[in-house]
Amino acid sequence: MGTGNDNNKPKMAGKQSIIFQNPPFIIEASSIAGKKEGEGPLGSMFDLVHEDPMVGKNNWEEAESELMKQAVDKVLQKAGLQNSDIRYLFGGDLLGQLIATSFGIAQTGIATFGIYGACSTMGEAMTLGAIMVEGGYADKVIAVTSSHFAGAEKQFRFPLDYGNQRPYSATWTVTGSGAVIISDKDDADRGNDAKVVITGVTTGKLVDYGIKDPMNMGAAMAPAACETIRQNFTDMGVGPDHYDKIITGDLGYVGKNILIDLLRENGYDIANNHMDCGIEVFNKDEQDTHAGGSGCGCSAITFASFIMNQLRSRTLKRVLFVPTGALLSQVSYNEGNTIPCIAHAVIVEAM
Amino acid sequence: MGTGNDNNKPKMAGKQSIIFQNPPFIIEASSIAGKKEGEGPLGSMFDLVHEDPMVGKNNWEEAESELMKQAVDKVLQKAGLQNSDIRYLFGGDLLGQLIATSFGIAQTGIATFGIYGACSTMGEAMTLGAIMVEGGYADKVIAVTSSHFAGAEKQFRFPLDYGNQRPYSATWTVTGSGAVIISDKDDADRGNDAKVVITGVTTGKLVDYGIKDPMNMGAAMAPAACETIRQNFTDMGVGPDHYDKIITGDLGYVGKNILIDLLRENGYDIANNHMDCGIEVFNKDEQDTHAGGSGCGCSAITFASFIMNQLRSRTLKRVLFVPTGALLSQVSYNEGNTIPCIAHAVIVEAM
Repeated sequence: MGTGNDNNKPKMAGKQSIIFQNPPFIIEASSIAGKKEGEGPLGSMFDLVHEDPMVGKNNWEEAESELMKQAVDKVLQKAGLQNSDIRYLFGGDLLGQLIATSFGIAQTGIATFGIYGACSTMGEAMTLGAIMVEGGYADKVIAVTSSHFAGAEKQFRFPLDYGNQRPYSATWTVTGSGAVIISDKDDADRGNDAKVVITGVTTGKLVDYGIKDPMNMGAAMAPAACETIRQNFTDMGVGPDHYDKIITGDLGYVGKNILIDLLRENGYDIANNHMDCGIEVFNKDEQDTHAGGSGCGCSAITFASFIMNQLRSRTLKRVLFVPTGALLSQVSYNEGNTIPCIAHAVIVEAM
Repeated sequence: MGTGNDNNKPKMAGKQSIIFQNPPFIIEASSIAGKKEGEGPLGSMFDLVHEDPMVGKNNWEEAESELMKQAVDKVLQKAGLQNSDIRYLFGGDLLGQLIATSFGIAQTGIATFGIYGACSTMGEAMTLGAIMVEGGYADKVIAVTSSHFAGAEKQFRFPLDYGNQRPYSATWTVTGSGAVIISDKDDADRGNDAKVVITGVTTGKLVDYGIKDPMNMGAAMAPAACETIRQNFTDMGVGPDHYDKIITGDLGYVGKNILIDLLRENGYDIANNHMDCGIEVFNKDEQDTHAGGSGCGCSAITFASFIMNQLRSRTLKRVLFVPTGALLSQVSYNEGNTIPCIAHAVIVEAM
C-alpha cells in the first residue's frame, strides 16, 4: 500500500475502545483564558489572557463566543493555516443549545459538528476528530471547547448579581477556550521537540450514582471517570503504570479523592500518577476557588498549554486524558433529577 | 484483501462531503410518536403512538426521555439485538444540555456521543454513525433523536399554560423519537425488500442570514439547507435528478418555498423532487399546525417510518436526507441575536 497506511488491522479494542494504527497528529494547540486563570499557576503558558471578563462584548454569552473565536483564530495562526485548510470542526460548550459555539465559529465557514458532553466535551471532540482523520475522512480538523464562569453560573446556578454563597465542594468554572488541530501528518520541523499523536480512545457510557447536588459535581463525576479509566485498562490490557499521567478534566479536590478510592476498589492504584486539570489551573490557597476549576474550558486550556508543553518536551511521554462531564441542566435538577455523568478518554503520546 | 473492503480509495469528496466505499447498512429503524402525530398522514406507519402526552411521567422532559428510551428499546427489539450488541450511540435532542438524551439512554450501558445540531441532529448522528462503522471503528451503532411539543415550547418560546398565540409562520414541534441501527453488514433475509445503505454525506457549515424571529424558523433554516444541498451537488458532481427525492427536515411551507427559490438562484431546480418531513408529518387542512412540523423528532420519525418504507419497497431508490437545524436558544434570541442555522445531508440508497 503506497500510503504506508494499514487499514486492515483491527481498530476496535475491547468493549469501548479504539486503537489508531496510524495515529493522527496534534499539530498545534491554543489557549485563551480569563483574568483569574491568567493569575493561576498556568497563567504564563496561555496564548492570551483577557483582563476584561466581557472580552469587549455585551454579555457573558457573547464573551464566551469571542473566546472560542479567538481560540480558533489563534490555533490557525500558530499553525500557519487558514479556515479553508480545515475540513471539519468539532465544537461544544456548556450553554443551552451550544450558543457559545454556534456564534463563536459561525464566521469560519468550516463544516461543523456540534457536540455535547458537558465538561467532557474536549475528550469527545478529540475522539471524533481523531477518528475522522485516521479513517481518511478528513486531513485536518479542529477540536475546540469553551466555558465562562459568569455564563455558567447564570446557566446552571444563580446569576452572579444574586451574590449567592458557594459551598466548599463547588468548583469554579474556568473562563477560557482551548483548541487543537488534528492532522494526518505533522510536516513541521519540531527540532528537539516531540511530535504529539493520539494513539487511542475509550468512549464513556453514562454513569449515575444518584448524586443530586449541582454544587458537588466532583462527587457526581468521579464514578464516570472511574468507569472509563477502568474500561481503558481492561480494553487495552494495561494498568495505571502504562501512563506517565492519568489526567482527569475537572474532578477537583473532592472528586479526585473519590476517584482514587473507587479505582482502588477495582484493584487499580492511580494515586501516584493522577493529575486533575481543575486542580492544576488554580492556586488553592490564594485563589479561593474552593474545590478547584471546572467547565469545558478547564481541560481544554490545560491540555492546550501545560499538557502539550510537557508532551513536546517529553517530560510526559504517554498520558490518558480523561475530561469528565456532569450532564445536568437547570431544568433537570430543579425537577429533582439526579446528575448522570460521562467521561471520554484519549491516549496522547509524544513521539 | 480478504474482507472485501477497499480502504484506499479516496473517501473525501470536494469540500465538505464523504463517499463511502463500503456503504454501511441501516438494518433497522423505529419510530415512537405522540397522539397528534399518530392522527397525521403517517400515523399508521409508526411503531407506537402514545395517547398520553406525558407518557406516564411527571413532566415534559421526562416524557421526552421516555420516548427516546422506547425508540432505542424498539429498534433493538425489531433487530433482535441487545444493548450489548451496540458499540456506540449517537444521540441528541433540543433541550438545554441534552437532558432528554442523557436521561433517556442512561440505563442502556452503551458508550455514548452526545451531539447537537438542533433539528439537524438526526443527520449529524447518521453521519457520525456511518463514519464509525465504515471506518472499522464500530460494528453497530445507534443514531437517535427526540423532541416533544410541550417541552420545546417551554424551552424556546412560552410554557403552554400562557396560552400564547402562534403566527402562521410557526411550526409545530413533533412529539416523537426515531432511531436507526447502522451496521457493517445486513444479515437479515429481506425477501423482496431492499437493503438500505448510506453511501455518502455532506456536512453543513453555519449559515446566518440575520433572521431573528423564532416563530419563523423555516425562513431562517432555508439558506442553510440551500448551502448544504448546493455543496452536495458540487462535491458529488451531480444535480437534482441524481436523487429520487431531496428530503429536508422541517422547513415547513414557508421554508420550502424559500429553499426552492434560493436553489433556483444557484441554477438548480428541485421543485419536482423536493419533500419536507415537516410537511409530510401533519395534515395541513385538518391539524392546525400552521407552517408544518419541526423538531429533532420530526425528521427522525419520518425517516424511520415513511422514508424507510419507501426505500425498502424501492419506491425510492436514492434520497438526499437533509435535516435542518436552527441553532438558537432562549438566551440568544432574548439577547437580540440572530438565528445561525445548519443542515447535514445524508445520501441513503436502496440496493
